[in-house]
Amino acid sequence: MKIIEGSVTAAKGFQATGGHIGIKADKNDLAVVYSETPCTYAGAFTQNVVKAAPVHWDKAILESGRKVHAVVVNSGNANAATGLQGEKDAADTALVLAQALGVDQKEVLVCSTGVIGVPMPMELIKKGVPEVAKTLGSSLEHGNLAAQAIMTTDTVQKTIAVEETIGEITFTVGGMSKGAGMIHPNMATLLGFVTTDINISKEMLQKALSKAINTSFNMITVDGDTSTNDSVLVLANGLAGNPIIDSEGEAFDKFYAALYEVCKYLAVSIAKDGEGATKLLEVRLSGAKSFEDGKTLAKSILTSSLVKTAFFGEDANWGRIFCAMGYSGVNFDPNKVNIAIESSAGKEAMLSAGLPLAFSEEKAKKILEEKEITILVKMGEGDAQVTAWGCDFSYDYVRINGDYRS
Amino acid sequence: MKIIEGSVTAAKGFQATGGHIGIKADKNDLAVVYSETPCTYAGAFTQNVVKAAPVHWDKAILESGRKVHAVVVNSGNANAATGLQGEKDAADTALVLAQALGVDQKEVLVCSTGVIGVPMPMELIKKGVPEVAKTLGSSLEHGNLAAQAIMTTDTVQKTIAVEETIGEITFTVGGMSKGAGMIHPNMATLLGFVTTDINISKEMLQKALSKAINTSFNMITVDGDTSTNDSVLVLANGLAGNPIIDSEGEAFDKFYAALYEVCKYLAVSIAKDGEGATKLLEVRLSGAKSFEDGKTLAKSILTSSLVKTAFFGEDANWGRIFCAMGYSGVNFDPNKVNIAIESSAGKEAMLSAGLPLAFSEEKAKKILEEKEITILVKMGEGDAQVTAWGCDFSYDYVRINGDYRS
Repeated sequence: MKIIEGSVTAAKGFQATGGHIGIKADKNDLAVVYSETPCTYAGAFTQNVVKAAPVHWDKAILESGRKVHAVVVNSGNANAATGLQGEKDAADTALVLAQALGVDQKEVLVCSTGVIGVPMPMELIKKGVPEVAKTLGSSLEHGNLAAQAIMTTDTVQKTIAVEETIGEITFTVGGMSKGAGMIHPNMATLLGFVTTDINISKEMLQKALSKAINTSFNMITVDGDTSTNDSVLVLANGLAGNPIIDSEGEAFDKFYAALYEVCKYLAVSIAKDGEGATKLLEVRLSGAKSFEDGKTLAKSILTSSLVKTAFFGEDANWGRIFCAMGYSGVNFDPNKVNIAIESSAGKEAMLSAGLPLAFSEEKAKKILEEKEITILVKMGEGDAQVTAWGCDFSYDYVRINGDYRS
Repeated sequence: MKIIEGSVTAAKGFQATGGHIGIKADKNDLAVVYSETPCTYAGAFTQNVVKAAPVHWDKAILESGRKVHAVVVNSGNANAATGLQGEKDAADTALVLAQALGVDQKEVLVCSTGVIGVPMPMELIKKGVPEVAKTLGSSLEHGNLAAQAIMTTDTVQKTIAVEETIGEITFTVGGMSKGAGMIHPNMATLLGFVTTDINISKEMLQKALSKAINTSFNMITVDGDTSTNDSVLVLANGLAGNPIIDSEGEAFDKFYAALYEVCKYLAVSIAKDGEGATKLLEVRLSGAKSFEDGKTLAKSILTSSLVKTAFFGEDANWGRIFCAMGYSGVNFDPNKVNIAIESSAGKEAMLSAGLPLAFSEEKAKKILEEKEITILVKMGEGDAQVTAWGCDFSYDYVRINGDYRS
């Protein structure tokens, strides 16, 4: 597997673009991804009871089993808590792009991100979407335009592409994502778009996606808030020309590894770019009774405001990590737990079998000064291990979110 | 029922004091509460898997059923994650006070609050506790000294007392509490101490406490972090002289009402004094399917960092409230939900049957400028109603917790 420059336009036959249609004052706010060849499609969506209208639209198309040609994404408005009008607006948005591209309305997926509870500005959509669609192209720059147009409070664009071979056949998986706040995915997440030219059945594509998000997008948290709009969509147009992957085996494994690489990169990019974040935090937890237990423990650590502010303050306050594990809801023996911190500046053990160690404050400070820090936890209860990612909690999170809507 | 000046020394026969023994650099760090008459005792404790040593000590005494004479509380060190040495230190702390007061070691309860994972400075305890115990007294000021000595990041002392009559008999319930961060009680909470001269059986005292904390201490949150040390203790010495309350009935109801008043006041005081808080937030949620559902929904709203920062920014971003309900884990129909905000400046509806209302931003702003704001939620699904309290999330929370331990 090779990481290459690019994103959703890296795989054969995919075009993309981004533009400004006026939902946001001065930043690009509309992205389109398109494949002339119809695409097998897999998706994963938010588990929030309050689901945005586009989530309903995309889920219905997923359940219908049909192939798709395009995705239209707006930022600046979530089209959530907008009732029946919101459902109609999502369908109309698909129709506008479908007409511009000459495809069926139900071959167009829709995603939205932004403020909740504000009606979609449909005049801007009807006028703007066909204009933006005219600028579709397959270059690296076209991919970048799309990745930038889906950003909200993101500070960097999040894109990656990888190349892999199955026998003589080369295939590509590329993706983009957005997300910085309201990030605590549950089964699905934020907005993530992956395109690939692999030839694969719908069932195996969904299987690969579901497995990949479980240890990538579902393992990140910024602020514990699971959004109404989380969606990860994968489109596969088959242009790589490999024999169709319709069962497990070496070809599926190779595709899965490439898809996972893309999902993990996009997910970790989101944790790293968490609103106001100054540090990427990684929890590597081993010895849990089960994967679910490990996940709950790791996310409880990464969601704790007290843990997050301690890392912002570069304070080796491991007691808050232990405390957050204790209230996670998972039952465990505190007397078996080991905790250590690690970064490129070194590693320092803090807790051994439930007892505090006399550690070097100076060494701990050096470790915590780094921008990427790993919290190592050993439970001593079983064989399950998980890795999860989050970020610290700074003054800027409060600044950004004390004044987001207005 | 009458609210009177006072706290844990308000009820007949109770003495208290506070002093400085050197655990903290310059603030009082040790409190003692004492009744010469032995007290029936009830308690509720943290559900965190990682329990502090004093919690184990107090639970064992509760289970033994014996009466108690005193409580010793230190701030500055939580005596949590301190292993067998910590258990021994909690027992030794009880012994030191027991010897000073001439009572049995197992008639002394112990509470600690402060940093996790640091061995207790037992030399200071052994030297300081007898000195502080010498200053016990029953005045209002003695109660204040105790209330101040248990504070950590609290900015105000939290005390209350109420007086009530049963027939000709007057009884008093007084209390103090501490807590500002790591506040998200589960079944018990933080530190709360209630003294009363009512004559009541152990079973009925525990019954009253368990019921009272369920809708007071267990209904507050500051940061979603359930502490390792949460404890609420009630001591009843019977000096009011009423016939013993050993079953439900009018006398029990009157005592319960007084106890609840004290617990609620102490709990709401903690939410209002949340670390860095500028506003007290109250959620009044009705029409839930069950009390548990309502509690989960209300606490999900009050725990959301996005909701909390929006209130800090005085932004009427009700979408975040709706979103936090959606990911709470409670299943409900979004199309039945109503949301409004209210304060002394007025009331404004935001969401009606799942649909956004065109509300006055100007009026909403005025409501949000107040220091105490109520979020009104109607679920339209059942008869259960709950009230919960929290606070906003400001820059100061980050400042306080980015630099607590060091």
